Amino acid sequence: MSIHNQQTKLTIGLFGFGVVGESLYKVLAHTPSLNAQIKKVCIRHPHKKRNAPAELFTTDAALLLNDPEINVIVELIDDPVAAYYIVITALTGGKAVVSANKKLIAENMETLIGLQQQYNVPFLYEAACCASIPVIRNLEEYYDNDLLQGISGIVNGSTNYILTKVTEEKITFATALQQAQAEGFAESNPALDVNGIDAVNKLAILLTHAYGIIVSPSDLIHTGIQNLDENDARFATEKGFDIKLVAKACKQQDGTIAAFVLPQFVAKADQLSTVRNEYNGVVIESSLADKQFFYGKGAGGFPTASAVLSDLSALRYNYRYEYKKLNYQAPASLTTECYLKVCIRFRGILHVPQDRFDSILEWSCNRNHCHVTGILPLSQLTNSDWWKQPGISILLYPDGIFENYEPQRETSDQNLGFVEQLAEAE
Amino acid sequence: MSIHNQQTKLTIGLFGFGVVGESLYKVLAHTPSLNAQIKKVCIRHPHKKRNAPAELFTTDAALLLNDPEINVIVELIDDPVAAYYIVITALTGGKAVVSANKKLIAENMETLIGLQQQYNVPFLYEAACCASIPVIRNLEEYYDNDLLQGISGIVNGSTNYILTKVTEEKITFATALQQAQAEGFAESNPALDVNGIDAVNKLAILLTHAYGIIVSPSDLIHTGIQNLDENDARFATEKGFDIKLVAKACKQQDGTIAAFVLPQFVAKADQLSTVRNEYNGVVIESSLADKQFFYGKGAGGFPTASAVLSDLSALRYNYRYEYKKLNYQAPASLTTECYLKVCIRFRGILHVPQDRFDSILEWSCNRNHCHVTGILPLSQLTNSDWWKQPGISILLYPDGIFENYEPQRETSDQNLGFVEQLAEAE
Repeated sequence: MSIHNQQTKLTIGLFGFGVVGESLYKVLAHTPSLNAQIKKVCIRHPHKKRNAPAELFTTDAALLLNDPEINVIVELIDDPVAAYYIVITALTGGKAVVSANKKLIAENMETLIGLQQQYNVPFLYEAACCASIPVIRNLEEYYDNDLLQGISGIVNGSTNYILTKVTEEKITFATALQQAQAEGFAESNPALDVNGIDAVNKLAILLTHAYGIIVSPSDLIHTGIQNLDENDARFATEKGFDIKLVAKACKQQDGTIAAFVLPQFVAKADQLSTVRNEYNGVVIESSLADKQFFYGKGAGGFPTASAVLSDLSALRYNYRYEYKKLNYQAPASLTTECYLKVCIRFRGILHVPQDRFDSILEWSCNRNHCHVTGILPLSQLTNSDWWKQPGISILLYPDGIFENYEPQRETSDQNLGFVEQLAEAE
Repeated sequence: MSIHNQQTKLTIGLFGFGVVGESLYKVLAHTPSLNAQIKKVCIRHPHKKRNAPAELFTTDAALLLNDPEINVIVELIDDPVAAYYIVITALTGGKAVVSANKKLIAENMETLIGLQQQYNVPFLYEAACCASIPVIRNLEEYYDNDLLQGISGIVNGSTNYILTKVTEEKITFATALQQAQAEGFAESNPALDVNGIDAVNKLAILLTHAYGIIVSPSDLIHTGIQNLDENDARFATEKGFDIKLVAKACKQQDGTIAAFVLPQFVAKADQLSTVRNEYNGVVIESSLADKQFFYGKGAGGFPTASAVLSDLSALRYNYRYEYKKLNYQAPASLTTECYLKVCIRFRGILHVPQDRFDSILEWSCNRNHCHVTGILPLSQLTNSDWWKQPGISILLYPDGIFENYEPQRETSDQNLGFVEQLAEAE
């Protein structure tokens, strides 16, 4: 009972046969209906034992890239330089490309969009953002810029696993990180996850599909959980909050977008609070559909292969991202013209840079640290990294973004009192 | 920076200008990028005041259906007979159709699929299931039959609103229903929602896209919340559960599918427990992506219009449902060869049909009612409605579906004891 005649048969050249590559191979074997076939797999180490017929493998990339029968390149390798070469060569050669490489995509978005246009080929990468959660496709399809109020996402499974363990099991960050590594949720070099680099790469990709903004991830305000400690976890628990590392984009009244990756207090009633361990979750708010929440595994072989599979399925009917928000007469732009309610922990009262706060609302200090809750212009986090220094942690409050903030005289007086009172404690 | 050349321009003929129709009209005015235009709106009452130019409206359906320039019919009317005529006429006339009419679709699935094939036209209805939640598209794209373990969904907002109020605010079902009606979440005749008819229509649609099963909704085991009362709510609270009306499909080891709509106890840790008030939520379990959860508004003008909008967006690149699971060599089929752990409330001990249970695990009775927890073959709910009679309520336990169940002699003895002990209480 087939009703589709224009289906493209997919002949795949696969780069990489690691966890995701092998998962994809297995899954394709179980989905004959997709009518997709892996013709050749390019690997780096020819002598490694593989769970697939030997004749499938080659170490010669050109064998895949120059094969006219191969119409889709699936790129699932670790090496960013090689990945870039493969993707560019495939696109310029008129082949469709599917990739899960968020770093590659985020850092080269403009080039990659240009190539898709110039060579009229699709480049899909649903797996690059929250793996099994179809967030890119949904942002493309469902939300016009005008209607999209904001996105809040837990987009990195390793850090979420660590934060869950620290807050629920009261273990230290160091122990939790070890556990995450033991369970395979964190890289042996976990810096990219822990410092928020992975999350900000994903945020950059989301911004393109949500608002038509192309931005280098390194230009986005971001930090990870590297400076959080048990004092912060205790502080959150006392306030009744969870701590999550959240990638956020939030539309202001003038249409500009405030965007950043910061650790955040999350209220128990917030959907993001239900995202535990290595799972990911994204809340999308729009004036149309109200609030939507997508939850699923954000990493791992099969969840990532699942997203690659959905891209392959979409290629059969010639789906491509339209990047339609880039074509708007007045495309959205980023802003730092807003204010954050944050809790910042310093080593002691003398380390608090009071002049950076618009006002200080609450503080608590002891010999070892000083938690300051205050209002900070977002611009205070741009082009400076005082707030990322060792010993300093930052946590955004729930609903802690304000377009306007009028500091009150009383509050300023209070600041004065705060410093005078507590300088002695040092 | 446009990379898509094959886009189809959409010229829309809209049937219905109620809450959803008007929302769609407003939203299209805010999304010029969609390149879709409503040419004419067919309404029933020409003299009703409308928030749109008078020349847009007509009462003559033929004016839309025969207009060669109109290439999409959007059907958003209440009248099921008229809706059927419109959809059939449009499809046979070679026009694409978008509809939100779950009853129409569920009851005529086979015919509608046949027409799409015969006339080579797409018919999309994302809005028919959970409105703003893109569940149909995701089942089509993401989950191959082999990989899809099960679906559990809260797919009816009115009943979920009532259940939330009853369990959280301890009000009666009758009061909660009145509130739902006052807030516009329930129809003035709420029977279709409350009795589970709306939910089972949606389940039938989900079964087609999840497993390639075409089934008349009336042939699916279903009930609603009509017989639940405050005793059930109290019982659930004591056990630490919420109560939700859940549409469920669950794959057995032999590949057959157990499917039904029943009220269910839901553990607090279950994602479905976070779905409150008029929201909808669907958990999809697959061996590939593990567990995914989609959450959003399942009804209302803008959320429904949002789903219609996504269908229109998809039509531009000639997307259509493939119903690929219908083409499997061995398509899935429904089964009643499994067992449920349920709690059934009867008016009194003498009303308990013991022979229907495989075993009784627990019971508690007083003068007014008798809660019996036991194991019931699913076949006991087929082709009989003893369990839907006034005074009898049924609630499925969490993880309460078993492929096999071996009744134990001790348990049978216990049953005997149970009856003897409690007959006196009557």
